[in-house]
Amino acid sequence: MPVYNAPIKDTQFILHDVLKISESDIPGYSDLEAEFTGAVLEEAGKVATNVLHPLNVVGDTEGCRLENGVVYTPTGFKDAFEQMKEGGWTGLDMPEEYGGQNMPYVLGTAVGEMFSGANQAFVMYQGLTHGAASAILAHGTDEQKDKYLPNMVSCEWTGTMNLTEPHCGTDLGLMRTKADPQGDGSYKISGQKIFISSGDHDMADNIIHLVLAKIPGGPDGIKGVSLFIVPKFLVKEDGSLGERNGVSVGNIEEKMGIHGNSTCVMNYDEATGWLLGEEHKGMRAMFTMMNEARLGVGMQGLSQAEAAYQNAVEYAKDRLQGRDVTGVKNPDGPADPLIVHPDIRRNLMDQKSFTEGARAFILWGASMIDKAHRSGDKDADGLISLLTPVIKGFLTDQGYDMTVQAQQVYGGHGYIEEWGMSQYTRDARIAMIYEGANGVQALDLVGRKLAQDGGKHVMAFFDMVKTFSKENAGQDEAYDKAFIEPLKVASKDLQAAGMYFMQEGMKNPNNALSGSYDFMHMFGHVCLGLMWAQMAKAAQQALDGDASDKDFYETKINTGRFYMARRLPATGMHLARIQTGADTVMALDAASF
Amino acid sequence: MPVYNAPIKDTQFILHDVLKISESDIPGYSDLEAEFTGAVLEEAGKVATNVLHPLNVVGDTEGCRLENGVVYTPTGFKDAFEQMKEGGWTGLDMPEEYGGQNMPYVLGTAVGEMFSGANQAFVMYQGLTHGAASAILAHGTDEQKDKYLPNMVSCEWTGTMNLTEPHCGTDLGLMRTKADPQGDGSYKISGQKIFISSGDHDMADNIIHLVLAKIPGGPDGIKGVSLFIVPKFLVKEDGSLGERNGVSVGNIEEKMGIHGNSTCVMNYDEATGWLLGEEHKGMRAMFTMMNEARLGVGMQGLSQAEAAYQNAVEYAKDRLQGRDVTGVKNPDGPADPLIVHPDIRRNLMDQKSFTEGARAFILWGASMIDKAHRSGDKDADGLISLLTPVIKGFLTDQGYDMTVQAQQVYGGHGYIEEWGMSQYTRDARIAMIYEGANGVQALDLVGRKLAQDGGKHVMAFFDMVKTFSKENAGQDEAYDKAFIEPLKVASKDLQAAGMYFMQEGMKNPNNALSGSYDFMHMFGHVCLGLMWAQMAKAAQQALDGDASDKDFYETKINTGRFYMARRLPATGMHLARIQTGADTVMALDAASF
Repeated sequence: MPVYNAPIKDTQFILHDVLKISESDIPGYSDLEAEFTGAVLEEAGKVATNVLHPLNVVGDTEGCRLENGVVYTPTGFKDAFEQMKEGGWTGLDMPEEYGGQNMPYVLGTAVGEMFSGANQAFVMYQGLTHGAASAILAHGTDEQKDKYLPNMVSCEWTGTMNLTEPHCGTDLGLMRTKADPQGDGSYKISGQKIFISSGDHDMADNIIHLVLAKIPGGPDGIKGVSLFIVPKFLVKEDGSLGERNGVSVGNIEEKMGIHGNSTCVMNYDEATGWLLGEEHKGMRAMFTMMNEARLGVGMQGLSQAEAAYQNAVEYAKDRLQGRDVTGVKNPDGPADPLIVHPDIRRNLMDQKSFTEGARAFILWGASMIDKAHRSGDKDADGLISLLTPVIKGFLTDQGYDMTVQAQQVYGGHGYIEEWGMSQYTRDARIAMIYEGANGVQALDLVGRKLAQDGGKHVMAFFDMVKTFSKENAGQDEAYDKAFIEPLKVASKDLQAAGMYFMQEGMKNPNNALSGSYDFMHMFGHVCLGLMWAQMAKAAQQALDGDASDKDFYETKINTGRFYMARRLPATGMHLARIQTGADTVMALDAASF
Repeated sequence: MPVYNAPIKDTQFILHDVLKISESDIPGYSDLEAEFTGAVLEEAGKVATNVLHPLNVVGDTEGCRLENGVVYTPTGFKDAFEQMKEGGWTGLDMPEEYGGQNMPYVLGTAVGEMFSGANQAFVMYQGLTHGAASAILAHGTDEQKDKYLPNMVSCEWTGTMNLTEPHCGTDLGLMRTKADPQGDGSYKISGQKIFISSGDHDMADNIIHLVLAKIPGGPDGIKGVSLFIVPKFLVKEDGSLGERNGVSVGNIEEKMGIHGNSTCVMNYDEATGWLLGEEHKGMRAMFTMMNEARLGVGMQGLSQAEAAYQNAVEYAKDRLQGRDVTGVKNPDGPADPLIVHPDIRRNLMDQKSFTEGARAFILWGASMIDKAHRSGDKDADGLISLLTPVIKGFLTDQGYDMTVQAQQVYGGHGYIEEWGMSQYTRDARIAMIYEGANGVQALDLVGRKLAQDGGKHVMAFFDMVKTFSKENAGQDEAYDKAFIEPLKVASKDLQAAGMYFMQEGMKNPNNALSGSYDFMHMFGHVCLGLMWAQMAKAAQQALDGDASDKDFYETKINTGRFYMARRLPATGMHLARIQTGADTVMALDAASF
């Protein structure tokens, strides 16, 4: 049985020592003092460890089942969902007027990591609801908000997002689901949607489906797509539930992982729906939530890596196998623990330096979303738009790799289901795919975000790195050597890649797009390098001050040194690949594959 | 339903254009002319595609079941096993005197890739038998050989290898299973073994377990381990089956993949066994088969990557999604096929250039094993010993990554089980673990093989690369630039890493061991770089000659150019990591993780 402990201390360090959130002038941040966030995280951690985590393996083993059109979630899910609702966790960062607690997104994200690390499949029921509620909040009429939001914020009703169809995923312009206007403001929605997470289940009284569909006669392709609210049960004027709508579950998909979440084929058969936002502006309505949703998926990459890491460390300390080549460490035992071996260390340090760096990156990103939303800061909005595909693509790729590495620490025991390590890998795999497959994230980054607003945001990013380096260099030789210098090298690699794209992409866009995946990864490394440089600085300040827990801060600096020395050099490889352009990538005829 | 096509043309190219096997003076090789091997591969390909492949998903879905102590394999496995036996495939490279066909190992390996690519879990029943039979062949008495080998070569009886126990995997010195001598040449074996592939099943009349155990009173640790033959049913003097031995299945493990293979907990309760080889020399007996067994696992890394790749290509050609940014390619369709997109190309080229390079590497390795065994060539034996951990560790890591990339081409369809892509990933995962987890391979490479025989073999490898570069440079500028130059750079990186280990490892062995995993990977890249340089040369020679299929050879050269340009630069990153030594890897106390 795996363990899960909420990373409260690490989270607090990032929120307060690094981001210093309570000193920020973002509305709502001044309330987020260390004592307060500590109390919230402590409570969330208890829910994660005691309520959600014990159901993680149960969800994987039992899965969801469809019987006579009704979806049943695994044993214990319903009770746990009730506890989440009762604790008020579902509306933590939702507006007070709809029953939420109006906390900033940065705190919701910190809590979300813990819930997701404890049980990703379970938390998705709430996560999709949060996404759907955010869409209604951003694009709904007052009437729609009043009708749906209170019950969605409390998770009495849950939500879904219906985009994919059997023949179209990324290219939603090919969509066939149609919405016929009925003249009374309502539409009849017909079509099939697939891969609908939390599509149906037995934990809520109603499910509010947000469905992309085309109104006949509208523009071709993606420009003719609109977004609709399609409740499972129609909601009467008085807010009570009326008749069952024309939406049903066709099937539950058999998946590699996240078995505890019901991934459904949803059939819409003249289901009644109402337009959310404007006609034919469905994609725009979806896109306003994209940064949040993608950051949430990037967070899953972190959360699964963190959970897997915790278990790998435990196993590496417990399992006795072989002897330390530099001298026996456990003379009273038959062998030394795995953790004495350098390659096990290398493996664990890869994981540790990733998860802590990723957590800083995500919380920084979440604070940018707050800045954009709560302060209306356009620069923050631009920067988080740029970084969103990096957070999503890089963190889910690397997070997955880390779950594979954690599994590897267990040897054969990592491959059998008994120890739970296979599940982390299988669950983490989906995050590389949904909410835009990572290749699409790379395309978004290089094909769209780099040049957005005249390249202003990427220049701002480089300036930020440069300013940080300048302001913090020259005070401590060891810090400069371990952090500032590698950060400069990596950032220069990234700039060189950007320059290559500008120059060679002009001649042939494929020269840029062939390197998009490498670019996404090198960008991610530079961001984690920046995070580590900031964390090391904060840790050193704490050490220079009156920090009582010196071990914690010294470990933080040493973990950062590992990242800078061992992980960051990847940027050079990515740059070398990128600079070979499209030549070898595009050389073959399709028939020659 | 996934597809599988045997890569006959690619295999023939390697065997004849690159390795030129029929011109070799290794005994038995002169028979291996292109027409002959082509016919064998053609037949093997039919078995793979028509008999084994259709059962791959069946095996995954049904798994094996244990009922009243009896293990049942999935539907169709028994029939398919009969067909393998009838076709004589089980004894292809086994000696004629025991009913085999005495073909060289290189041909057995080429055929093995096809069978394994079609159905890894199934082929393991035969693979383990092959391994056990090889051990008896190498270490058994004439009586033992006569008693067991004919039925094992024909797979009337299958075999298993019993090493792991619950508390010990890599560190077999901790073993508890004991073997009490009975004074009549037999022993009573008692203990529990876990993770026993093909441990029991319903496809053979008898199962010959090879079991590592300790004879009481022998040396401590690994030096007191002996190897025993423990048949499921005792074999009478006349060769007929006698009473059931004291060995039983405790459980079938639930695993991430290879569900079609019965991975058993085996309980030995005073089971009768006979010593194989010498007392307390059990590990030596195991090690003589290690190169073959590990090459076989490396081959699984290739085979799953190849199978996954074939399907990813098919999907990328069929699935219409988005438009080529440089101009519409499929104007009559609603969208262009995925394969027009540069990042999909990058992904597919990664896979293609890996599988073709890996195949050359493995077949070259297999020919070295033939040279060592059939010609008694000590240098070949030394070189393949050096390269074995690279073949096993690098090819299974990369092979796994490639199945993940193939899955990614499918987007959401890669995550649901319906399309079969998840299975390739789940099946491929085990190869990184069994037959020595890849971290142990890296340790074997750096801690043992590099310095073996005074470093003679690694020097021979570098000489080989240097000689090849020298002999083939200066004739064709494009070839030099695309192949010779990158190969030189990568080889220089590898040498620099080896030099670092020598110098810094003297001071502290952890400086070398902290970089062992990176070294294994950079070594693998250099080997694949060498393979590609050789393949490109052979392809160019064919083009310069009268090759009719120009596309095939041009594609070969272009695929090689991709590998050299896009994959080989990884060596620089690995070197940079290695040169940071043990400092950051070993900085933390165990308690600080």
